This record gives sequence, structure tokens and C-alpha cells, in this order.
Amino acid sequence: MPIDDVLTRLPPIRRIDREWIAKAEARQLSLTKPPGSLGRLEEIANRVAAIQQTLIPTVDGAQIIVFAGDHGVTAQGVAPYPSTVTAQMVANFLAGGAAVNALAVVAGAGVTVVDIGVASDEPIAEGVRGRRIARGTRNMVREPAMTPDEVLAAIVVGIEQGLDAADHAEMIGLGEMGIGNSTTAAAITAALTGLPPATVTGRGTGADDAMWQRKVAVIEEALRERRPDPDDGLDILAKVGGLEIAGLVGVVLAGAATRRVVVTDGFIATAAAAIAVRLCPAAGDYLFAAHRSIEPGHAALLQLIEQESLLDLRMRLGEGTGAALAFGVIRAAVAAFTRMATFESAGVSDRPA
Amino acid sequence: MPIDDVLTRLPPIRRIDREWIAKAEARQLSLTKPPGSLGRLEEIANRVAAIQQTLIPTVDGAQIIVFAGDHGVTAQGVAPYPSTVTAQMVANFLAGGAAVNALAVVAGAGVTVVDIGVASDEPIAEGVRGRRIARGTRNMVREPAMTPDEVLAAIVVGIEQGLDAADHAEMIGLGEMGIGNSTTAAAITAALTGLPPATVTGRGTGADDAMWQRKVAVIEEALRERRPDPDDGLDILAKVGGLEIAGLVGVVLAGAATRRVVVTDGFIATAAAAIAVRLCPAAGDYLFAAHRSIEPGHAALLQLIEQESLLDLRMRLGEGTGAALAFGVIRAAVAAFTRMATFESAGVSDRPA
Repeated sequence: MPIDDVLTRLPPIRRIDREWIAKAEARQLSLTKPPGSLGRLEEIANRVAAIQQTLIPTVDGAQIIVFAGDHGVTAQGVAPYPSTVTAQMVANFLAGGAAVNALAVVAGAGVTVVDIGVASDEPIAEGVRGRRIARGTRNMVREPAMTPDEVLAAIVVGIEQGLDAADHAEMIGLGEMGIGNSTTAAAITAALTGLPPATVTGRGTGADDAMWQRKVAVIEEALRERRPDPDDGLDILAKVGGLEIAGLVGVVLAGAATRRVVVTDGFIATAAAAIAVRLCPAAGDYLFAAHRSIEPGHAALLQLIEQESLLDLRMRLGEGTGAALAFGVIRAAVAAFTRMATFESAGVSDRPA
Repeated sequence: MPIDDVLTRLPPIRRIDREWIAKAEARQLSLTKPPGSLGRLEEIANRVAAIQQTLIPTVDGAQIIVFAGDHGVTAQGVAPYPSTVTAQMVANFLAGGAAVNALAVVAGAGVTVVDIGVASDEPIAEGVRGRRIARGTRNMVREPAMTPDEVLAAIVVGIEQGLDAADHAEMIGLGEMGIGNSTTAAAITAALTGLPPATVTGRGTGADDAMWQRKVAVIEEALRERRPDPDDGLDILAKVGGLEIAGLVGVVLAGAATRRVVVTDGFIATAAAAIAVRLCPAAGDYLFAAHRSIEPGHAALLQLIEQESLLDLRMRLGEGTGAALAFGVIRAAVAAFTRMATFESAGVSDRPA
């Protein structure tokens, strides 16, 4: 299988060790708080400890990788903004003016912007990482969105970027920008889950009723015409995927292989995470679901990656904004785990009077 | 009314101005994101703008005020830890070993620890702010927990501490420590809402079934014997309240009077916030509900203060841990609002193709 050729570029992706979870759970019980009282913060810290195989994990460094790509399916009138906005937003990311930039400052996270498939004839904006595989995908209603080679090339770009981030960051956030990609993500979700497109399709950046109905019909037609194999993540990507989504699949694989905390974002990033988990189930152990998007297909994807979202703030922007917010929660979880006193060291009574 | 005498120590507490909300909403629409796509982050930023009466709000400074107090009702066997743990935890806060300290470091927040009513004969731990009104409250089953004078004195201490924090912090978090105070908070909740004690009583730091039943019976008896007036927050505090809860009421009032962002914590802090709102409804405009505690009475309190929690991480620790986490979300909301480019400045198309 071609994905195996890709994976040979990476250290092996292994499940986290339950013994490390048990060790972390034991340490939690020694800390000066009622057992379990930090709720999900305890689960988070325990898993980070298992990922890093230490009881003194660190999550100081955080990097968001934003892949930008365009979508041929926008020719079907499925998005309220024109494809030119993708390139405009890339320039905005590089100038520091987008939401993800503002949230990354608060999170102390870096932002890398990668042009993996912007449909632009103009020179790439200054500061962007130019890794363009194609000028956007093809229209999935008429033909496969990508060739198998393009899919693999995009995943390899993602692996490269993921490894680069892993050099300095313990946490890697998934970001994306691509007009039309909520249609692509909904098609992937329907392909992965078998759920009807109408169930998993939302309004993206702001589709009205007529556009939403068109979006659903386009996805139905694409799935009927392309028939992606639900068990084959690469086939789904090639037939109804996106270049930026394939890139994020590579980031997840690289993050898992290097034992980094990989933080999904909203609907589109989680579609990539779900594909990565289908390609390599062990990668799921490294994933944290940043937030619950209001996109209706997101819950089904979270089930696929077996993750509960950390935040629910009715966001639906993407870019890595959810990941940026989640970094703070994960840092807090790890800080409590590593900085708190034990009952013994603090001289606090840990049992009934 | 005696609360009016107390409130004369403060600038008047005024409702926030809907015009500022409207101005902030208009600015949100100019920023480079689909309208409403940052979800609750937009509502948060808009309200902070209205609180500070500016479109360039700042929330750099954050201070958590932790009041520690003991509860005479622990004589009824309602808490799994002995009252001595309150003083031990005060020492732990001052040594920086508690959960709130770890989370405050991540949040860049200060932590102030105030002994407002610890039941200890020993000298106050070094570094604590000694403002002890009494050595714990009295047993509310046998007599009122506090005298009206003690309640007012505790509120005045809270006002003093709140004003002190407001000198340097735009955000003030409510923290507390007091063995037995989930019983007190449940009694307050039942008194404020009229809901049956069994509905609003949880397991606190870890009551088993027998202890939980005792806790419910104790609250039922206290309410039957003391008959607090549901419309009179001071009467509720005196009869079934706690010194640290009364202190937090003062912090809320001082925070609202000085137009600060006031962040509640879990069940106990929200009980204080609900009392403050009953005393002065306008104070509610300055409140943000950090998180949803797993204590069953918390939801009813959130309804009373008309706030939806920002986080839901199944925490139940108190201390200000939830507030510390919420600071990051509020900072992110304000950062997006103040740092993002506009469609015009970034040259991004804001309308359909």
C-alpha cells in the first residue's frame, strides 16, 4: 500500500503505553486535591505524560501549521466567498491580522503558513512556505479531486512540516484555510461514516438555505459518481478531498510518530485527523480535540477519532483558532500535574478525620 | 437597608450600556472572519468592551482572590475532610503548591489568599492576608451561621480586597477554600431558588452515599429551622452562609463598581455571585461564568446570574481553578477583537463573488 511507503519516512507510530497512564493516575492521587477533582484536566495530563513517557511532561512550545488550498468544487456555487479569498487570507495570516494570529499570540504559539494548493497565478505572498502541489483541486463532481500521486505528495508535505514543527514544539495545532473546504470535509465525513450528506453538511462560512441545499446535492452527486472506498483514506482524499486536508493528515502522522501532542481544530481539521486515524489507528492516541464546531458533521468525526472536545464556544472559523485556545487548557492540565505539591510534601491531610 | 450603607463605600454599580455592545458588534462585523464565526468569543469581547466602555479593551492583568473560611456545620459530618485541612490548604496556597497556583502561573494571574474565617488557634500562615471575622461560622443547624454584623464585616473585607485587586487587574477571579462549604453553597442555592436540597446538593470533595444523605438532611433541617428570606441575600448569608462566601459577595460588588471583568469559579463562588446579583442585579453585567461544575446545584445558580459557563471540563475543585482557566478564553476573545485586521485594512473580500 502506498501509505506504507510514506510511513517508512517516519519513526514507527505506536500506541501509547497504558502503564504510563497508570503511573500518571497514581501521581494524580498524590496531589493536594480531592481525587478526580480536576476532571478532564487530569485525563489530559495523564495522556500527555504517556505520550512523552515521563511524569514531568512539558508543553511549552506550540506551533500551529496552517495549510491553504483551493477547491474545484467551488465552481458548483457551494461557498459564499470567492476562491480568491483563500490567497487574500494567506496574506492576512502572514501580516498577522487573522483570528488565528491573535489567538496564537495569547497562546504563545507560532503560526506557519503553507501554500499547498492555492489557486493563484500570482507570486506566492512573502513569508509563506511554498509547497504548492496544484492550483487547487479539481471539481469532485466532474472528476476526482486529486490524483493518488497528488494525495501522497500533499501528505509528504504535511509530514515535512509536522517534523519541522516537532523540532521545537511539544504541541502541534492543525490549521487550514480554503474556500469551499467545508463542502470537502462534509464529503469526507459522509464517505468515512456512511451518514447521509444532509446530516453532516453545515453552512460553512455562511451558506443560506438555497446554497446549503446545493451543497448537499453536490456532495451526494460527488459520492455517487466517485464512489470512494470508505476503508481507504487515500482513496477518499483523492476522490473528494482537499490538498490542505491531505497536508494535515501528514502533520498528524508526523506528530504521532514523534510523540507530540497533536491538537485538532474544527470540522475541516478533524476530517483530516479522522483520515489519519483510518490510515493508522495508533495515531489517534496523540490527538486532542480542541473544540466542538457548530458544523453538524463534527460530532461524527469526533466519534471516529474517539475524542471529546475540550471546548464548546460555538466557533466555526477554522484556521487553527480552536487549537490555539486548546493549547491553554492543555498547558493548565500539565502545569497542575507537574507543579502541584503532594499531600506529603505540603503536610495536608489526605484522608477523613 | 444595611447593604446600602455598604454600597455607599463604592462607586455606583451601573448596568453596562447597550450602545457599547452595539458598537462592539459593528466592529466584529468589520474583522476578517465570517460574521459570528468566533461564536462566544465575540459575545465575550463585546461585553468586555461595554464594561470598559472602549473598543480597545485590555485584560492583561488578572488576580484571583481566594478567601478561606471554616464552617460550623462540619460538626454534622457533612465533609470527608476535617476542618484542619482549610488551614493546611491556606499554607499550601502560600507555598504555591495548590492547583490554583499552578493554573494561575499558566494564566499569568496573581493569587491573593485571605483568611476571613479559618477555625484555627495557631498564628496565621506567613503571607496570608489576615482579615479573620470569626473562627469559622456557627453550626447552621443549631443557630444562624453568622450575625448580621459578621456578614456585613465579611462583605466589607471582600470589597476592600476587590478594590485592591481592581487597582492593577482588569479581571478578578473568585476563589475559595473551606471544608464544608459545598454544604453551605447548597443551602444557599436551595434558599435562593426554592429547589429541594436533594436536587442541589452534590458530593463536594467526595461524600459517599451515606454522607450525601446526611448532607441533604442537614440542609433541610437548617432551612426549616433558620427560614432564610429568599429575597434577602444578607439574611440567607447570615443564616446558612459562610464567611468566605460573604467575602466573595463583596469582591463581586467591588469588581462591578470599578467596571472590572469578574470571573466566577465553581459552585461555591457562583453561590456568592448569585447572592451579589440578588443584592444588586446590575452587578450581573460584570460576571462571566468560568466553568460548569459537576455539582448538581451549579446549573440553577448559573441561571440566576443569567450566565452560560465558558468551560465544561468536569472540574469540582474550587480555589479559583476554573477562573484561572477562563482568563485565557477571555484574553483570547479580547485579542481577536483588538488585534485582528479589518476586511478593508487587509484587502480581503467580505462579500459573495
